[in-house]
Amino acid sequence: MAERDPQQSFAQGSPRVLVAGATGFAGALAAHLLWRHPGFELVGVTGRSEVGRRLDDLYPRYRVPLAIQALDLDRFGAGGQGGVPLDAAVVAYPHAAAAPTVGALRELGARVVDLSADFRLSSQVTYERWYGPHPRPELLAHAVYGLSELHRAQIADTDILANPGCYPTDVVIDAKQGVSGAGRTFDDTTHLSMAGENILPYKVASHRHTPEIEEQLGLLGADMPVQFQAHLVPLDQGELASCYVTTTRTVAPAELAELYADAYADEPFVEVVDRPPGTRDVLETNFCRLLAAADGHTGKVVVLSAIDNLWKGTSSQAVQNLNIMFGLPETDGLL
Amino acid sequence: MAERDPQQSFAQGSPRVLVAGATGFAGALAAHLLWRHPGFELVGVTGRSEVGRRLDDLYPRYRVPLAIQALDLDRFGAGGQGGVPLDAAVVAYPHAAAAPTVGALRELGARVVDLSADFRLSSQVTYERWYGPHPRPELLAHAVYGLSELHRAQIADTDILANPGCYPTDVVIDAKQGVSGAGRTFDDTTHLSMAGENILPYKVASHRHTPEIEEQLGLLGADMPVQFQAHLVPLDQGELASCYVTTTRTVAPAELAELYADAYADEPFVEVVDRPPGTRDVLETNFCRLLAAADGHTGKVVVLSAIDNLWKGTSSQAVQNLNIMFGLPETDGLL
Amino acid sequence: MAERDPQQSFAQGSPRVLVAGATGFAGALAAHLLWRHPGFELVGVTGRSEVGRRLDDLYPRYRVPLAIQALDLDRFGAGGQGGVPLDAAVVAYPHAAAAPTVGALRELGARVVDLSADFRLSSQVTYERWYGPHPRPELLAHAVYGLSELHRAQIADTDILANPGCYPTDVVIDAKQGVSGAGRTFDDTTHLSMAGENILPYKVASHRHTPEIEEQLGLLGADMPVQFQAHLVPLDQGELASCYVTTTRTVAPAELAELYADAYADEPFVEVVDRPPGTRDVLETNFCRLLAAADGHTGKVVVLSAIDNLWKGTSSQAVQNLNIMFGLPETDGLL
Amino acid sequence: MAERDPQQSFAQGSPRVLVAGATGFAGALAAHLLWRHPGFELVGVTGRSEVGRRLDDLYPRYRVPLAIQALDLDRFGAGGQGGVPLDAAVVAYPHAAAAPTVGALRELGARVVDLSADFRLSSQVTYERWYGPHPRPELLAHAVYGLSELHRAQIADTDILANPGCYPTDVVIDAKQGVSGAGRTFDDTTHLSMAGENILPYKVASHRHTPEIEEQLGLLGADMPVQFQAHLVPLDQGELASCYVTTTRTVAPAELAELYADAYADEPFVEVVDRPPGTRDVLETNFCRLLAAADGHTGKVVVLSAIDNLWKGTSSQAVQNLNIMFGLPETDGLL
Repeated sequence: MAERDPQQSFAQGSPRVLVAGATGFAGALAAHLLWRHPGFELVGVTGRSEVGRRLDDLYPRYRVPLAIQALDLDRFGAGGQGGVPLDAAVVAYPHAAAAPTVGALRELGARVVDLSADFRLSSQVTYERWYGPHPRPELLAHAVYGLSELHRAQIADTDILANPGCYPTDVVIDAKQGVSGAGRTFDDTTHLSMAGENILPYKVASHRHTPEIEEQLGLLGADMPVQFQAHLVPLDQGELASCYVTTTRTVAPAELAELYADAYADEPFVEVVDRPPGTRDVLETNFCRLLAAADGHTGKVVVLSAIDNLWKGTSSQAVQNLNIMFGLPETDGLL
Repeated sequence: MAERDPQQSFAQGSPRVLVAGATGFAGALAAHLLWRHPGFELVGVTGRSEVGRRLDDLYPRYRVPLAIQALDLDRFGAGGQGGVPLDAAVVAYPHAAAAPTVGALRELGARVVDLSADFRLSSQVTYERWYGPHPRPELLAHAVYGLSELHRAQIADTDILANPGCYPTDVVIDAKQGVSGAGRTFDDTTHLSMAGENILPYKVASHRHTPEIEEQLGLLGADMPVQFQAHLVPLDQGELASCYVTTTRTVAPAELAELYADAYADEPFVEVVDRPPGTRDVLETNFCRLLAAADGHTGKVVVLSAIDNLWKGTSSQAVQNLNIMFGLPETDGLL
Repeated sequence: MAERDPQQSFAQGSPRVLVAGATGFAGALAAHLLWRHPGFELVGVTGRSEVGRRLDDLYPRYRVPLAIQALDLDRFGAGGQGGVPLDAAVVAYPHAAAAPTVGALRELGARVVDLSADFRLSSQVTYERWYGPHPRPELLAHAVYGLSELHRAQIADTDILANPGCYPTDVVIDAKQGVSGAGRTFDDTTHLSMAGENILPYKVASHRHTPEIEEQLGLLGADMPVQFQAHLVPLDQGELASCYVTTTRTVAPAELAELYADAYADEPFVEVVDRPPGTRDVLETNFCRLLAAADGHTGKVVVLSAIDNLWKGTSSQAVQNLNIMFGLPETDGLL
Repeated sequence: MAERDPQQSFAQGSPRVLVAGATGFAGALAAHLLWRHPGFELVGVTGRSEVGRRLDDLYPRYRVPLAIQALDLDRFGAGGQGGVPLDAAVVAYPHAAAAPTVGALRELGARVVDLSADFRLSSQVTYERWYGPHPRPELLAHAVYGLSELHRAQIADTDILANPGCYPTDVVIDAKQGVSGAGRTFDDTTHLSMAGENILPYKVASHRHTPEIEEQLGLLGADMPVQFQAHLVPLDQGELASCYVTTTRTVAPAELAELYADAYADEPFVEVVDRPPGTRDVLETNFCRLLAAADGHTGKVVVLSAIDNLWKGTSSQAVQNLNIMFGLPETDGLL
């Protein structure tokens, strides 16, 4: 096979990006998207395991021919001994492990997209109730929540971007998710012989994504507790959130449709549709597909929202945010 | 292969059962369960198609070596020309098609378990709002709703048993179901290339199972509109209902657990558990597995209920009801 | 959602392509690939059903916002009343139905890629033994077999390109294929409740792809009968061919590896690897991934070949052939 | 839920069986089958992990309410301090770990069914070429290969029964197997996000089941090297072997069908059929379903054989062998 020259496709001066934590599903996909992105140059992929192995050996589908390195901060940054300047980094570490690396990369001059939960909540108190001690609380005030559709202006300026958890891309009550949401975890919940032919609720009556959903709803003026329940269903990539909303006044179907159509009219990645959205409709895309329906029988509003949890839910949303951060067209590398 | 003699396994005088509509998933499974049941004699399987083909050719997994017949009412009943007396029948027809056959078989002296919706609602008016004209409304008053756990005494005496829809086995808000729930229907919702790797809501804000859930809740003293939303997920057999209940007073976790444990203490087929129930836990069984949890954050109660939609949701529940109707131990043929 | 302008992405003078038969899996994917292809302009999609429906309503994943039309030959061609000139067409019809349309479009001046079997065999006699009467046998001599890797030069010049069946992309003995290989067919073999959790051989000891494999092997100097057996396995897109070859002399592993590496060194879409190729490695790509191994125990050579049956096996190979036919870089629109 | 009394269902004097290694898929299923078997009494389940956990907590589907114990040989046998006499044991350990336990349990007086490869080959030399040093080679001569259909008489008398590998239940060339064949192993080959939507060959040109297939074929008078290739396909339980046989003379289709029908006429668990056998046809049963076809084009015979790899391939075959060993009807507990 004739291989692509890693350098040839980038214009001089493209922002240089590192993916730290590229051995997991989310980091690997971010590397894949950035590798083929016309506006970024992927300068390295690091991992806390699999060092020396090529990423396209670990994930053949993602044809990224770079060797996985240990993260050596001295190699990067304007003042680094290795002299490899970094403009941006995607950090795909678990919570608590992420914050110190985010801080260190930022200090080297990189603008960082953090896929973990470490910077998603503005309040250290709330964070520590759900996740334990925060390693770098002084950075919380610098971070912006990366829901592209809500915070585009602040995203453009930030140097710490907290990529949303895959659930809170929309308000959620009952969420069903494919097994890739559990990541490259090897246990009973991901083994095909146990996850296959199964529907399994998890984290009953307590899920760490609840506070960030509530914080974002609060910013929109809707202060209320959210009942959230997650379920694992036997597919790979896909997530459907079924939201049952009690409205403060009756909303007619036509008005509801118009409200949603208007709200998302200029969004390149939100499709408001008039049929039930299926996760297959948005598989391996950055799209979110939405249907809002008024139930005449109960007076409730039902909002159904389909995304690919690994793409729009995680890695392609990170790229959308990078596009915004670096002033590139928002859809670059994503259509 | 040495074949079982169809006659050998039945004691003299076992009730004689016919399955009408054995070519669909539910009828075929009912035939399979009755064929191997120690207390019933399966005297025939009929179909509106596939006449002459053996049932074990159509469904090799169900090793029922009987030829599918057209339903010829003259063959059956004490006064029938064919002289084949019938004690019971399972009718697995679509709604509206079922009622006339249920009536005719009852007139021949058979006690009938109807898998359709035709006799699930007590009110003709409500039925006709959701399903159209009822072909035999005068029979509605004779039917008993076959939720074994609620109506055991009346089930024992009835000659028209309306087997519940697979959803209303428990109160439901958000239901996720395997593709077998769509039956032997061939379209985009059942084709593996479209149903696979998909989560698809359907019948948004309107589902025909809502009224029967509400009627049964009303009998329990809980008159309220039910918000019901169904979803198709990519497995074959399994259904999980996630119910979000706003209670009239705060219920402590320990009290909630005790209430559920007490309510189902004597039920042979309901398992109240303290971990999330998965549909795989009840796959190909007549069990319903339940977890009730109080959410301290919102004050709501979450009830999660797993069944096999084809078994407990349809055909094995029909056999449980037949056991009750004929005074057999309730678990016969089902463990 | 802001929609792409259908016209904006094409340079003036891009070849204009029609997809006839875009309602099936293969035609729809061809339309999707051509819609986003930088070097072709998709001027229409036609269907023998679903006329008037938009293609992105029928296949939401393929975001092609064109309405499906009936094929009206008068609209197309230099002399057509509609005045829509056509440079190329992809015909995705069943065999026998394809040949007359291929002929008619060719007479309008279009160079045609035919996805059916109608032009894959050079001999009318052989064709008619497997498929019945050929509707346009006089055209057989004009057709080129579109195995890009073997017939690149003739492909560049032809105006009837017979796209290979998805199996014969490599020599095959035992082939396992995902359910999309059965197309948008609705029956027991594609229903998730029957195709799921199943491995099913089909067309035992007789498969129509055998003669085209044998004809291509013959052109390579290997005249021999091929034993071919196909199996359906429960996934959507993917095909693995396991070929067991008795060689005329013993080949050492190192020599075998070198032979394969050399043979495909310049092929942009063939990856010769040294680990077992999985179909997931090539999912939704135009790649074919190959491993050849010598078995010291039996002296046989085992060749394992993985493709996506809908992509490299059908529609993306059609685009690769169109690229060759129109002198575009072979990888355009495919990486 | 009213629980079954572990003791009630057994006649006095039923053989008492232990399952050692009940935490893996095969051991757990063997425990499930023996627990509900009318002719055996399951006296314990042991594990090398999960000690103290109930088996029905680890495998809810298998409703075996026994706590997993560490294997304490002093508890068992006529002379054991615990005084629990054992008649039989199923050992579900990996190869090399199994042999010492098999020996020890045999010395306590138990007749042992070994699910590992340790006693499948008669020759120590051949064993050690594929598996490494044999821990108890002096026992090899006492073992019988447990292909029920071939060695029924010796099985009835043996006290070491080597249960066949799931592949060699029939002669095999190209085998496709569900993921449960990999057992409760947690890695890339069993994670739904990698095993799903994949077809993956493994152990290319070298598989440890080859020698036992060849040894059994040799006993039938067919001395020849076997080319064996295994593949993982995305389902849970099922295995299809496609065997391509070059016969020494031409066999007419009718003769071939008769040969197979005659050979298996008295076998309760082998179904010779005249349509392609699917693994779903035998799902969760002890049946093997066979089709033999003569290919007029190549002169080869194709034999297709479907089993459930966990049932007939492993655990239910162990029970069939136990039935034979203890003189019970061969189908007891298996229909």
